[in-house]
Formats: sequence, C-alpha cells, structure tokens
Amino acid sequence: MAAARADFILVSGGLGPTADDLTREAVAGVLGVDLEINEGWVERLRAFFHARGREMPERNRIQAMVPRGATLVDNPRGTAPGIIASVPRGDGTSAWLMAMPGVPREMFGMFEEAALPVLRRAGGGGVILSRTLHTFGLGESVVAEKLGELMTRGRNPSVGTTVSGGVVSLRINARFATPAEASDQLERTCEACRARLGSLIYGQDEDTIQAVTMRFLLDRGRTVATAESCTGGLAAKMLSDVPGSSGAFLAGWVTYSNAAKVRDLGVSADTLERVGAVSEETARQMARGARQRAGADLAVAITGIAGPDGGTSEKPVGTVCMALAHESGVDSRTFLFVGDRDLVRDRSAKTALSMLRFHLLGEAMPA
Amino acid sequence: MAAARADFILVSGGLGPTADDLTREAVAGVLGVDLEINEGWVERLRAFFHARGREMPERNRIQAMVPRGATLVDNPRGTAPGIIASVPRGDGTSAWLMAMPGVPREMFGMFEEAALPVLRRAGGGGVILSRTLHTFGLGESVVAEKLGELMTRGRNPSVGTTVSGGVVSLRINARFATPAEASDQLERTCEACRARLGSLIYGQDEDTIQAVTMRFLLDRGRTVATAESCTGGLAAKMLSDVPGSSGAFLAGWVTYSNAAKVRDLGVSADTLERVGAVSEETARQMARGARQRAGADLAVAITGIAGPDGGTSEKPVGTVCMALAHESGVDSRTFLFVGDRDLVRDRSAKTALSMLRFHLLGEAMPA
Repeated sequence: MAAARADFILVSGGLGPTADDLTREAVAGVLGVDLEINEGWVERLRAFFHARGREMPERNRIQAMVPRGATLVDNPRGTAPGIIASVPRGDGTSAWLMAMPGVPREMFGMFEEAALPVLRRAGGGGVILSRTLHTFGLGESVVAEKLGELMTRGRNPSVGTTVSGGVVSLRINARFATPAEASDQLERTCEACRARLGSLIYGQDEDTIQAVTMRFLLDRGRTVATAESCTGGLAAKMLSDVPGSSGAFLAGWVTYSNAAKVRDLGVSADTLERVGAVSEETARQMARGARQRAGADLAVAITGIAGPDGGTSEKPVGTVCMALAHESGVDSRTFLFVGDRDLVRDRSAKTALSMLRFHLLGEAMPA
Repeated sequence: MAAARADFILVSGGLGPTADDLTREAVAGVLGVDLEINEGWVERLRAFFHARGREMPERNRIQAMVPRGATLVDNPRGTAPGIIASVPRGDGTSAWLMAMPGVPREMFGMFEEAALPVLRRAGGGGVILSRTLHTFGLGESVVAEKLGELMTRGRNPSVGTTVSGGVVSLRINARFATPAEASDQLERTCEACRARLGSLIYGQDEDTIQAVTMRFLLDRGRTVATAESCTGGLAAKMLSDVPGSSGAFLAGWVTYSNAAKVRDLGVSADTLERVGAVSEETARQMARGARQRAGADLAVAITGIAGPDGGTSEKPVGTVCMALAHESGVDSRTFLFVGDRDLVRDRSAKTALSMLRFHLLGEAMPA
C-alpha cells in the first residue's frame, strides 16, 4: 500500500459510471468505510445532463458516491468528481490521497486546481525547475572538478552529476518562490556550467550524442562515412539511429578481417604487417579509404581490441585507435577504455561521434 | 526497512572482527536490544585458533557478540557465526532475519544448512525450478496458441509467456516436493514446449539470438558477411557483439545511399530505377554482392523503410526486404514490422540473424 511509503498519493481513473470503475470502492476499502451518496453532486449531474437536453442516466448516480469522511472535489469539466481522503498509516500519521478522473483534460485540470496547491504548500510554496546537461569525453571526477563550487552542497540551484554509458550528466535543480525566479536562476546556473565545460556539453534533456552530431552534419550540409573494425557497425548504427540521417550518412564499412581492410578500404598490407590492425596508421588509412570511396566530406575510422581476448602488454584490451579524415587531412588518436566488450565498443563509437562533432565545431577535442 | 515488505530477510557480510563489520550492531539496533557475549562461541573461537597453533586475537571476541534474544548460527567453516532473529513488524507479525558471513564459501554453506530448510518449510516443503526458453519470429498469441493446454492456469509445471524486443519467452516453473521430481517435470515440460515450437526456440535463459547464431557459424566453420541499408550496421553490430565473432564474421557493408549499393555491392542501377532500393531484387543483389566481395560462405542483406518518413501506400513504413545468399543460391523475403524506427531496425536485424540460423539448421524459417 502506497500510504506506507509516500505522503501524497495521486490516483487517476476508475471514477466513471460503469461496472469496472472501481476507484471509489477501492478508496472506501482502504479507509474501511462505506460509500455515501452526495446529494449535492447528484443535483450537479442532473443539471449537467439537463444542460445537454438529456435526462441523467440512472447509472450515473454512482458518480456521486463518496467514501464516508472523504471530500468530494469539484470537476467543472465532466461528470466524475474527484475524491480527497486522509489515509491513516497506523502510526498516528496519515497520507494524503486524491483520486482524479482518468480523462486527461479533466485530470490535468483537477491536478492543477486541487493537487498542485497542496503539493506546493507541502513543498514550502516554491517551484522547482530542472534541466539536465549532457557531457561526453571526460570522467565524472574531472567534470566535477571543473564545476567546482557550483556543486557545493546546499547551493540553490543545485548541480549534481550522474553517469550512464560514459555520458556524464549535470542535473540542475532550481527551487525558488516563483516560476520566473526559478527559470532565471536555472538559466544562470546552466550558463555558469557552460562557461566551465564549453563544448564538452553536447546537449540537454533528451538529446543524444548521435542526434546532436547528425543535426550538425545536416545543418552544415556535410556528408559522412564510417570505417569500423572492433565496433562492428555500432558507429554506423548510431548515426543511422537518427531519422533523416540518410541526408548525411552515405556509407559504412565493417572491415572486421584484415583482408576486408585491404580490399574494401585500401589499407596497405605492409602497414598491417608492420604496425598491426590496431594502430593509428591503420585507422588513418581506413578513414582515408572510406572518405574517398564513399565520396564523403568526412569519414571516421575505429580499430581496436574490444576483448575479452586479443590483448597484449603493449596493446591491452580496450586499446582503440580512431581517425577522422576531412578536407584538409586526417586526425588520429589512441584511447584506452577500461571495461567489458560492450563498454569498449560503446565508448569507442561515441568517441568517434564526438571527434566528428568537435571537428564540425572547429574545436580541438579535449584529451 | 525490508521487514515491512518481506517475510524473510537474508543479509550477508559485516560479521568479521574489524571496525567496519557492523551487521551485529545493525541487527541489534533494528531489534532495539543490546549485544551480548556468547561464551560458548568464545570457546569455539579459542579452539579454532588453538587448532591453528595461534592465540585468539582479542578483537575476534566481538565475533561472539549476538543481539539479545537472537539465535547464534554455527559456522563450521570460519570464525563468524550467523545470527537469526525475529523482527517485529508492529502489527503483531514478524519477519525472519538471518545474517550470514560474507565469505562466499561460508555464506553458501550456512544458507544451505540454516536458511534453505526454513524457506522450504515456508514454501510448503517443495522446491521450485525454473527455466526460460526464448523464441523469435512469431507473435505471442501464435506462440500461446501452439502451446495450447500447456499454458492452462493452475498447471504444474506452469508455462507463461513474456515478450521483450520481439523475443517471446516461455517461463516454465516446476514446483514439486523434491528437487529430483521438479527437475524431471521441468525437463518434460520443456520437451513438450520444444515439440510444439521446434526450432522457433532458439535458446534458453541467458542465450541471445546473436550468440546462438554466431555459435552455429563457428561450430560449423562457416563465414558470413552483411549488407545493410535501413538497419545501418545493426546486424553487423549484433554479430560482432559475440566475443570471438571475428572467426566467422568477415565484413559488413552499410550501403545507406543508392550510390553505395551500386558501387560497393554491385547492385544494378537499373534494378534500383525499376523496383527501388526496398525490393527483394535489390536485397538479393546486395546479399550476392556482399557474399562475393567478402569471400564469405553466407551473406545477409537488409533493405527497408525504418521510418518515420519514406513510407508509401505500396511500401509503408516498416516494409523490409531481406535476402540470404548461400552456396546454392539466394533466398529472399519481405516483412512488415509495425512500430517506431528503433523497433523496425531491431526486428529487421534479428530477423536477418534468424534467417541465417534457420539456414544453418537446414530448415525453412516459419512464416
């Protein structure tokens, strides 16, 4: 029973006139009381139907039934009133329960008029506005260090960090007396975060790194190709996650074998022999080959050791070389991702998108 | 507090002799009682160390401290005894709590000897064995229809279905008096399910369709290539999810643009002009091209409309054509997946793996 764990319980639906509308009975059951007819609401129902030129169907009477001791909540938008009740918890305290109609328009109206004022009062009368900013490329502790005193406990707006899939997100909560003040303070803190983290922040709330990168490509009218070894198509998959990506993403190669790297991307057999498939030189040749063959403006290449096997002391599992071929040359970098196969592949693909994004921004990607 | 929600609470760890071993204190705190020394266990500890030619360190005395009213549980494998206590819930009932040592060997031993008998008695003396069988390719209702009376409510073993990501899973629970009987009955019901569903069942418990398909390829020493349009690399990504997949997966092409289909896979421009990129003919040419170019035994091709845009009345969003090129020709099929972009892409890639798996089984894939 929710009352044991929560102070406020909001229920929606089940207040209609049919046999399966059981919320009234459920609330009465929880309270251990009977349902009583509210004659005032019966009159309201009659008037509601009368205004529409109809008689009130007898079965609608049940919508005027309220658990004894509970409060009926006016519903100017429909026939089902809401119910507010105090649910005792057995330890002398009680939870506040409100049952609202399920029809969205009726529910939203009743929530704003009857529930929100109660919740606001309980919350000290203020409003809380939140935003989440997403970063990729640095660890949580480095991000926290850059944010410095913005993360001080007790500060308002508050700034906290969470990590998921290598994405370090900043959750900013602004709690103030008025929406205008909360909004203003939220913006100020977001700006302060941006000032510290710059382009490490790739988006906010629902933004993904692939959607943001693809939007950059489409906005700038640039095309891209991918050349992947250890990620096995994941970078291409991420780019093509985005609806409309065919406007920028031309082609991808998954050159899992060395033979494919030579045949499909023109990597030199000598390079593979000399420095191996997991090398910046191979990554650069893969990127250059993909860019040329696809006729794309840009191409990213990924070659590494995803594990669990294949690592050596010089190139341990998680070693991944990446390259970005563009109009004026090829950039390359070597990364070491620590984690299992799925993690290494995920971080590699996201890092390739990040290289692409920083290139489009005309900025150097932070180390 | 777990006691409010559960009848049995198992805790492990925190029973050692150091300052951060706080389980004894925590249990005493929950019970509202003090810790008492159990002199019998002090003697056991002394004997334990004596047998190893050592004096008992004074700090180990704390391992003989037990919350007043709680029961000490013998630990023949180490120095930390377990604790069994009855935790009152305030409503007259109580939860059964057992704290076990954290050392796995000690914990498993104590669980089997002291906890399992209690849990078994509470469970009516029987044991429950479970297995999950996974199917892909048919809807839940069709699977349920094929299972027929095996799914009858109240049957033991019980068979229930769940769906996730297009995978319809059968959860089989066998509850019997003895492990032998439960195991025997579980096997019988699994066999009955297999008799109804045949190769639609691709695996059980932790098996994924990509791991099973890759295992088939590796076991048979067959190689594979992929040619993808709408899935944008997802089928290649899934194949390469599996460690060791480089033994079978040679290369993949993400021919997102028509130009790439022609240039990289040898799809005929005339075909694209005549029947379009989303056609079985294009899929067949993609599969054939990928197989030849990669020098692989098998190749799968996927071309379709993932949406949200690009659908027409003849080829609505979700229309996906697939082909499998093999030693003796090319098979192709057209599917209609109903759902959003992610769903269409996911089901398409899984269906391609499924085509591969049925081919390797030498069976026709069910419609």
